[in-house]
Amino acid sequence: MPHVLPFKQVDVFTAELYKGNPVAVTNCMGIDESEVTTEQLQAIATWTNLSETTFLFKPTEPGCDYKLRIFTPKNELPFAGHPTVGSCKAFIEFTGTKKEKIVQQCGLGHIELSVTDDQKISFKAGKTIVEDISDDVAKAYEATMGIKSIERPRLLKVGPNWVVFLVKDSDEVLKIDADFAAMSALDLDNDHTGVIVGGLKTGCTTGDAYEIRAFAPSIKVPEDPVCGSGTLSFLRYLNEINQYKEPKNLHITQGARVGRNGNLYCKIDTKSDGNADYYVGGYAIAIVNGTITL
Amino acid sequence: MPHVLPFKQVDVFTAELYKGNPVAVTNCMGIDESEVTTEQLQAIATWTNLSETTFLFKPTEPGCDYKLRIFTPKNELPFAGHPTVGSCKAFIEFTGTKKEKIVQQCGLGHIELSVTDDQKISFKAGKTIVEDISDDVAKAYEATMGIKSIERPRLLKVGPNWVVFLVKDSDEVLKIDADFAAMSALDLDNDHTGVIVGGLKTGCTTGDAYEIRAFAPSIKVPEDPVCGSGTLSFLRYLNEINQYKEPKNLHITQGARVGRNGNLYCKIDTKSDGNADYYVGGYAIAIVNGTITL
Repeated sequence: MPHVLPFKQVDVFTAELYKGNPVAVTNCMGIDESEVTTEQLQAIATWTNLSETTFLFKPTEPGCDYKLRIFTPKNELPFAGHPTVGSCKAFIEFTGTKKEKIVQQCGLGHIELSVTDDQKISFKAGKTIVEDISDDVAKAYEATMGIKSIERPRLLKVGPNWVVFLVKDSDEVLKIDADFAAMSALDLDNDHTGVIVGGLKTGCTTGDAYEIRAFAPSIKVPEDPVCGSGTLSFLRYLNEINQYKEPKNLHITQGARVGRNGNLYCKIDTKSDGNADYYVGGYAIAIVNGTITL
Repeated sequence: MPHVLPFKQVDVFTAELYKGNPVAVTNCMGIDESEVTTEQLQAIATWTNLSETTFLFKPTEPGCDYKLRIFTPKNELPFAGHPTVGSCKAFIEFTGTKKEKIVQQCGLGHIELSVTDDQKISFKAGKTIVEDISDDVAKAYEATMGIKSIERPRLLKVGPNWVVFLVKDSDEVLKIDADFAAMSALDLDNDHTGVIVGGLKTGCTTGDAYEIRAFAPSIKVPEDPVCGSGTLSFLRYLNEINQYKEPKNLHITQGARVGRNGNLYCKIDTKSDGNADYYVGGYAIAIVNGTITL
């Protein structure tokens, strides 16, 4: 017998319809995980054709509110940013919970989520690694985008491997027309997921608003409209450059060149020992509400 | 105020869940077409990320049951095959109609649809044009697929422009691993949408069951899992070769190499004057059922 389960398709990192990044979420909390196979979940994710499709299950570990499984059209992922925010939004609407702190169990471990009074949802990021890249590789990437970075580009390992560039301002970011063939070749040669380019918002005097773009042509995503892991990489990179001494709130916008208007409300929470926690969040809207037949 | 409208995501050309080709269908028959803009509909189609997203409106011409608007993530289309079958299925479920004959108003004109007792839905195809292609171009395509066609390949203009090849049998069809870069270059050089390759099902002695595959790498669809217009092109090509004297039913399967199992039940309806009508149909299943917020 097929299962008919609650379903939502959620727009993430936006308060405005169709301006964010979609994720399809199925509520499997009413069944046992053993009642569905990984092959079934993968077939659904291939069929929706979204960058990610997720499934909420009853948690199997103490202290967690739900267990999340995340699939791309090709494979299962231990974690992903915008699907986590969108799935948490769906969990809140499915269950009616009013909790301010929610814990997601997933392949990466336990992810802490915070929900503000006005329903902004943020997750606390896991470990990030910063590495150098060679000048030759950096220059080759710059040539594919016609940019000159104002700080040394670095490789950020946050799950995906993003090469991060900072340019003069958001005007420079928005005018990039990248050579995707050349960029894709560089990504494949160097085992990089893709490229993040950011710049301070033109006219911003407070140093806390940036425009970024995420390019990943080698995995068939020439431009990701609103990218959670790319945003995290960019935050970590900014902290590497600026060495913030105090907790810093940052507002990242994304997607303008592909018809979106993603808004990410982020925090670099610097601790007294010099380490920092990173928070990425935003609004989400369930646009499709109904059921799905498995 | 946003509209909250009935919505279905329908799997087309399959009786088995997740084995067909999906289309997202919004029922706008309860509002006036002037209440939504083309930009809004396009933004929804970009967001769903499916090959096609459709919108049912009240018909504006006599004798029609509904008006259909069809969008890809990039633009609006006058007609498309699998979205027509999927949207008709959604129309039947939204309205509860028991009619055996349904007429769809769309950019191409009035499309006649038939519904069988067991809910197979078929459309009568519009005009198709057969043209020659040069031996050089044909050979270049064959090299990209490692095949040798057993009949002269032809160009079929059915809206999209498909180059159609017939090979020995379905085993030959299923073993193709195409060179998509080379094929894409040929498609672009010759203004072709892509390539259809078909072969009689291995072991089929009745001459009425074929396996086909549809490749369109230049429009970012390396392999279309279940393609209505490609199937129509193949039917027209078979009639060009075989010059059927009697009406002929054909069963076309598609999608095996990309995890699907599309089944198309087709008819070449030869008339006494030598002309023929072409019918393409199959089952469809509404997998997602609910509402969408516009």
